Amino acid sequence: MTICTTAAGVGCLQASTGVEARHMIRSGSWSGHTSGAAPNFVQGNLAILPADLANDFLRFCQRNPKPCPLLGVSEPGDPRLPSLGEDLDIRTDVPAYRVWRHGELVEEVTDIRALWRDDLVSFVIGCSFSFEQGLIDAGIPLRHIAEGRNVAMYRTNIATTPAGVFHGPMVVSMRPMTAANAIRAVQVTARTPAVHGAPVHLGDPSLIGIANLQKPDFGDAVAVMPDELPVFWACGVTPQSVIMEAKPAFCITHSPGKMLVTDLLDRDFAFS
Amino acid sequence: MTICTTAAGVGCLQASTGVEARHMIRSGSWSGHTSGAAPNFVQGNLAILPADLANDFLRFCQRNPKPCPLLGVSEPGDPRLPSLGEDLDIRTDVPAYRVWRHGELVEEVTDIRALWRDDLVSFVIGCSFSFEQGLIDAGIPLRHIAEGRNVAMYRTNIATTPAGVFHGPMVVSMRPMTAANAIRAVQVTARTPAVHGAPVHLGDPSLIGIANLQKPDFGDAVAVMPDELPVFWACGVTPQSVIMEAKPAFCITHSPGKMLVTDLLDRDFAFS
Repeated sequence: MTICTTAAGVGCLQASTGVEARHMIRSGSWSGHTSGAAPNFVQGNLAILPADLANDFLRFCQRNPKPCPLLGVSEPGDPRLPSLGEDLDIRTDVPAYRVWRHGELVEEVTDIRALWRDDLVSFVIGCSFSFEQGLIDAGIPLRHIAEGRNVAMYRTNIATTPAGVFHGPMVVSMRPMTAANAIRAVQVTARTPAVHGAPVHLGDPSLIGIANLQKPDFGDAVAVMPDELPVFWACGVTPQSVIMEAKPAFCITHSPGKMLVTDLLDRDFAFS
Repeated sequence: MTICTTAAGVGCLQASTGVEARHMIRSGSWSGHTSGAAPNFVQGNLAILPADLANDFLRFCQRNPKPCPLLGVSEPGDPRLPSLGEDLDIRTDVPAYRVWRHGELVEEVTDIRALWRDDLVSFVIGCSFSFEQGLIDAGIPLRHIAEGRNVAMYRTNIATTPAGVFHGPMVVSMRPMTAANAIRAVQVTARTPAVHGAPVHLGDPSLIGIANLQKPDFGDAVAVMPDELPVFWACGVTPQSVIMEAKPAFCITHSPGKMLVTDLLDRDFAFS
């Protein structure tokens, strides 16, 4: 494992396995972003909720599998997720955490052992890193990656199916591509429903309530060329946005771009 | 088996198997179109060429599998195609044939036994009837079917890969649908490469050289609603168009809409 520096001067973690990446993060050697941290290993979004809200949230994810593909759910109070990784401790193995109280961000920390409670349930939700690797492997260029930007994300008028206190619109990520690549991208991403699956929309953004593609609600705008279509996928920011909307008394999420690296392989998610 | 009359007053053949439909056609009881003739049985486009051109055409199909998915090729001079049907005789089992000399249509007949030659090779090419059934089964409405029209087809600026005397642009069929249905249609039709597979284009028609969707080169125009995209598939009219362009001294094709009904089942073509 190594810590490198990219051409843009940003540090990056390079581990050969998920467990190696987690141990490096746990030891305090790395608190940066995890993009490319352990190539071919699945990364996930994290949400930690008290047990009284966890059942509502579990039902919310079950009802909205495209934006909220659940990779793993812990037992209440148990910081381990053995189905996702050997020796995984959710309290120490993510580079940075955001702590929220009543919907307000109160602190950002690199270890949550001092905050741990017997009623906390961890949810690990699939993220688009895995399907982006599938698109790149299929020879489909992704402009935000080529330009070193975060993917553009938008709130839509596509309603999620509510559960308990959780409700709100779907957030989507957008990648511009030619029609031929969009057709291929549907085929590639349909094979991985555990990481958002096939697109939810393509073409005219106004049909899903997006007024201006150049003004994303999250992430960075990228150009859409005259021979391209915008292609929209359900986004893992949806569950975070829905949790913030519910303003729970207490919750913890990962910091943006600083994900949980698991022992699962991207290829395990593709059915064919 | 029965001969019925549709609401529009058009006759139709209803057989329970491919072989039953072919025997009815061979006996002279039916010379009309074969749409819906034997539900769930694969139908094919027919081209019969002299052996001196057949090798070029075989290579053309191999190089252009999306518009020219070959279901079967006969031995020279042999009117049977045992891989496509029990007791199949290509000289009598198609409701109507078109006979072409030097690129000119010279006659339309219901039996080609008198024209048969020892050097003729039959090519049976997949058609969109099979994948349209897949789309309908997936709950995707097809406007041309709802309106009782032929599908709209267009010459494009997408070049085929030439072989010998055969070359020319790809012809596509177009079906308008919502983005959500277009995404599903990609997934459904990608599973059946033997009947044209996934679309070749969607969205802006001008990007593939189509100036006006309301003026198809073949078939009937249908409306594209404001919340719809035109979705384009490679079309089995491409090989016919390419053969006509080559103006062979002699060739035979099926008459439009009057296809060969095989013993293969649509479902045999889907991989998953």
